[in-house]
Amino acid sequence: MNIKITGSGSYIPSIKVTNSDFSEHVFLNEDGSAFNYPNDVIAQKFVEITGIVERRYAQDNQTTSQIATIAAQKAIEDAKLDPETLDYIIFAHNFGDVKKGAIQSDMLPSLASKVKYNLRIKNPKCVAYDMLFGCPGWVESVIQAQAFIKAGMAKKCLVIGAETLSRVVDPHDRDSMIYSDGAGATIIEATNTEGGILSHASASYTYDEANFLFFGKSYNLDHNPDVRYIKMLGRKIYEFALSNVPKAMKECLEAANIDLSQVKKILIHQANEKMDEAIVNRFYKLYKTATPEGIMPMSIHKLGNSSVATVPTLYDLLMKGEIEDQSLNKGDIILFASVGAGMNINAIAYQM
Amino acid sequence: MNIKITGSGSYIPSIKVTNSDFSEHVFLNEDGSAFNYPNDVIAQKFVEITGIVERRYAQDNQTTSQIATIAAQKAIEDAKLDPETLDYIIFAHNFGDVKKGAIQSDMLPSLASKVKYNLRIKNPKCVAYDMLFGCPGWVESVIQAQAFIKAGMAKKCLVIGAETLSRVVDPHDRDSMIYSDGAGATIIEATNTEGGILSHASASYTYDEANFLFFGKSYNLDHNPDVRYIKMLGRKIYEFALSNVPKAMKECLEAANIDLSQVKKILIHQANEKMDEAIVNRFYKLYKTATPEGIMPMSIHKLGNSSVATVPTLYDLLMKGEIEDQSLNKGDIILFASVGAGMNINAIAYQM
Repeated sequence: MNIKITGSGSYIPSIKVTNSDFSEHVFLNEDGSAFNYPNDVIAQKFVEITGIVERRYAQDNQTTSQIATIAAQKAIEDAKLDPETLDYIIFAHNFGDVKKGAIQSDMLPSLASKVKYNLRIKNPKCVAYDMLFGCPGWVESVIQAQAFIKAGMAKKCLVIGAETLSRVVDPHDRDSMIYSDGAGATIIEATNTEGGILSHASASYTYDEANFLFFGKSYNLDHNPDVRYIKMLGRKIYEFALSNVPKAMKECLEAANIDLSQVKKILIHQANEKMDEAIVNRFYKLYKTATPEGIMPMSIHKLGNSSVATVPTLYDLLMKGEIEDQSLNKGDIILFASVGAGMNINAIAYQM
Repeated sequence: MNIKITGSGSYIPSIKVTNSDFSEHVFLNEDGSAFNYPNDVIAQKFVEITGIVERRYAQDNQTTSQIATIAAQKAIEDAKLDPETLDYIIFAHNFGDVKKGAIQSDMLPSLASKVKYNLRIKNPKCVAYDMLFGCPGWVESVIQAQAFIKAGMAKKCLVIGAETLSRVVDPHDRDSMIYSDGAGATIIEATNTEGGILSHASASYTYDEANFLFFGKSYNLDHNPDVRYIKMLGRKIYEFALSNVPKAMKECLEAANIDLSQVKKILIHQANEKMDEAIVNRFYKLYKTATPEGIMPMSIHKLGNSSVATVPTLYDLLMKGEIEDQSLNKGDIILFASVGAGMNINAIAYQM
């Protein structure tokens, strides 16, 4: 028995927000002081580091569970699956449904329950739950689906990663330009066809790292300090990711007994282009090998960082031929890799 | 190999709130209209139905992840476990950390990450994640721990259920008297000793039921409608639970090939005493058998309904001999059962 992705879907929100759309923002330092340079300089530095030219936001009346439903419908159609045969719906997110303009998270019922309701699935044996694991939540949910299948508890799982980060950003924080909204979904099935999940690696670094990404107050000190936003210690995350993600990727490959040369693509969480490049370069350096051209398909330039949604969305866009000069082909070995709040890291070696 | 609970711990918050502490509350109907009878009559009816005489609230400066840490520490000590050997920390909750007086949920990093940080665990291979599954979250997390162990991905898991429902209740809703705060934790291990998990059943009913428990506005129509609270359709939940929980319990027993007469105790989610009694009576009725005296140990009278925390707390209190005239003994077969938001239902047959 193998465990494979038999279908995928994604939803790219319709509102396009360019870097120049931030030109009127009052960006502040953490201590509330003003920057010494104008917003066009900030935007220029920003694009050089992150690669992000534009990002997508959900429409005002959409919630995370609603955009997730659209991605899930597409994945179900793509897999030609009867949704009543699903054993699990696993929904990775980190903030619940946050209405535009509100600060409360609505997770009652769980977003997985909301999606199951929206999909009009009747079968009560389809168990729907949410899981929170930072940005690596979708990759980790695939690992959980694998566990249920291996344990004989499931054959078919819908695994969703969706987030509306635009609802939890501090407009006075330059990092708000990184974050975006999105939804990706996949069907994970037990199958007798070749390929599938070859190995995985997961880790939670909390001893020193737990609060590298945290919920904190606005950089505008006049704001209510009880209203909190996604905040990150960028430099610390960069160093942490560079030290630990390549190791996890190598460990994952070794667990599958795969030679580096067999790896055709690396689908990495779209966090920040420079960081992603540095991670992949460091990974190849562990093998004393130069990074192959085009090994790392990217979507960050146009889509930004939509947390749990980046990896399943990137996979779906590749499968549909929507990333220029990039493709995935039958038999290809690919590596999924992800890092984020927790701080959590994971990787999956997968054969198409 | 068997999969057993090798240690447990719980935290009973220190603030005792009696029914008479609600005597000054202005309780309203859903449409904002006043009740036709005074609060002492409401309290009398309330105790007759729910069995709740008093409940516990966390101290103002405590959060869900903090009370969970205390329960987790006790469970680790009870299991005589080196916490560095844990493969997973699974934290079931539904609202994140909500500070007293605030309305935002803080789940960044995840509560499991916060607990791992608080426990000073260094091992990055201990994977920490949160899961949301309504009140049945702790039971479902035990089922997930079982999956990881069966799949060869874990040997030792810390499974936590903790909640501070006092932070998400509408003071104008009589149902606010039901909810309480609490934390329970258990260690689930692969072992060669006898007993352990014999079978399980899980289900998510969403087609008609998804919004039987939901996040809704205050019954005081003058309040900000964007501030939301835990709300329930009590009558519908009662009928739903009576129709479906006994079936799930029976299915679970049958999967383990266990005769009803072997069941020594039923540890049911402490939702509402009358409902719990009706569920267990209906369960025995499925077998045309009278409900045995003392089959269902209860903690609701003093502790209220603390959601995911009720079942692990009840288990821990029983193990420590703290429920009058009740005990669990080696070899006993017990049944865990739970129902709540989603709407989710689950059960585990377990041999001590």
